Amino acid sequence: MAKDSYLVGLIGSGIGPSLSPALHEREAGRQGLRYLYRLIDIDTLGVRPEAVGDLLRAARDLGFDGLNITHPCKQLVIEHLDALAPQAEALGAVNTVVLDDTGRATGHNTDVTGFAASFARGLPDAPLERIVQFGAGGAGAAVAHATLTLGAGRVTVVDAMPERAATLAAQLNRHFGDGRADHAAPDRLAGLLTRADGIVHATPTGMAAHPGLPLPAELLHPGLWIAEVVYRPLETELLRTARALGCATLDGGGMAVFQAADAFRLFTGREPDAVRMLADITDLAGALGAPQ
Amino acid sequence: MAKDSYLVGLIGSGIGPSLSPALHEREAGRQGLRYLYRLIDIDTLGVRPEAVGDLLRAARDLGFDGLNITHPCKQLVIEHLDALAPQAEALGAVNTVVLDDTGRATGHNTDVTGFAASFARGLPDAPLERIVQFGAGGAGAAVAHATLTLGAGRVTVVDAMPERAATLAAQLNRHFGDGRADHAAPDRLAGLLTRADGIVHATPTGMAAHPGLPLPAELLHPGLWIAEVVYRPLETELLRTARALGCATLDGGGMAVFQAADAFRLFTGREPDAVRMLADITDLAGALGAPQ
Repeated sequence: MAKDSYLVGLIGSGIGPSLSPALHEREAGRQGLRYLYRLIDIDTLGVRPEAVGDLLRAARDLGFDGLNITHPCKQLVIEHLDALAPQAEALGAVNTVVLDDTGRATGHNTDVTGFAASFARGLPDAPLERIVQFGAGGAGAAVAHATLTLGAGRVTVVDAMPERAATLAAQLNRHFGDGRADHAAPDRLAGLLTRADGIVHATPTGMAAHPGLPLPAELLHPGLWIAEVVYRPLETELLRTARALGCATLDGGGMAVFQAADAFRLFTGREPDAVRMLADITDLAGALGAPQ
Repeated sequence: MAKDSYLVGLIGSGIGPSLSPALHEREAGRQGLRYLYRLIDIDTLGVRPEAVGDLLRAARDLGFDGLNITHPCKQLVIEHLDALAPQAEALGAVNTVVLDDTGRATGHNTDVTGFAASFARGLPDAPLERIVQFGAGGAGAAVAHATLTLGAGRVTVVDAMPERAATLAAQLNRHFGDGRADHAAPDRLAGLLTRADGIVHATPTGMAAHPGLPLPAELLHPGLWIAEVVYRPLETELLRTARALGCATLDGGGMAVFQAADAFRLFTGREPDAVRMLADITDLAGALGAPQ
């Protein structure tokens, strides 16, 4: 009898508003699967992020097929895994754990594969020679791995915390080869953007709680494409401003969908329909709107 | 939004062949619920029965809505609960734990309510003045509580281990009032059954691994009704022999169904259709047949 029921969950902090349960469960419902996606919020449980190991073992013992992992547990979970997929090992962060029938736990990173898939679909002809990336946190590391894997010539990382930008650029150079990444202070943006092909935006700016633009509007120009990581709202002020100038743009919904689709495929071995899931996120992000 | 997804499980030893997942999930499917019933087998996990407390806490943390509990954990789980329903408290055994949204765990015993419901449905006009019950183990304790709750005049407990029968009879008298229960050695059966109204059979005899009759066939007579706890197979040698004599009979499928139906109601707050579930168990016990 083919397996038709799946139990998965998300471990992290403050995950109540996550769209992942709805994204996974809607797609599973269309495929005729009985599929439950549970939120396991360490804040609600009152445990520290280090409890991710105990929660992972509990999930394995209670019959979970897999877990998504988010902030602040993506690095902490690694020591509790039996194996790591290459992209997760390279990044040093795991957002998806597959638990097989023998209880073996393998870590993956579908933030990387998800952003890459979204980018390849949404901006297929975008030139990749010179990318300026805003944000050197966890999302920034994942999307830089994605663009460099897609063949980006050079990614210049800009962050309000210059040391974090420098550390990420050094890591990227170690993994992808010297000269593929560098970092710059925000005061060099004007010059950088004149010569850049596109911008990847990977900071929280533009979310409801952090409105506004991540850079002065006058630095944007029609020769840039803009790829956004924020997906609530789907149309951030950055995307709206860039579209008005005629820039090619990619919203953050695609990354959210493709990381979920890739996790769904890993959990079930079944092919998700990402086009249907893109329609779902427009619906869900629209319905749930501003919160978070 | 009304809750439409439920995560439950069964904790016990050697539970691989349990019909509970299929019974619960089929009924839930007909009600349009996404409902997963997971087996949490302490043998497979390699943990001791005392681990039931840790497993219960893990299930609560990971978003389970409830658990069934079976051998050898029905007593051990009690100290880990926040509250006990009256029938579970009286019996000192829990087979169903409801986990509410606040993480509060309440123990119930649907073996008692399930056998009572099955009996009331299947043998509604059976006289209850004098019942002879075979078996003083966990199932025996539950069904004695059920028949005494239904108004049985006196239950005489017969067991191959006379001390166990005496202990159960003493417990029943403490709870239901002096004189409601007694115990007898197997060599007194002939006299007891001449005057009895019916037999409740609560030993493993008649299961595939324990074939045969629990008493000499010549002690049966058409004035007795026979209620069976064994449900794999549904037609035990005892039931076949009794039916041939013209006895009214009740197979063990009803108890299996009604305990599951009562648990389903506790987990979901929704009314199960026990008639459809009775058809399921005929199907399932037939299909899975002899094993266990």
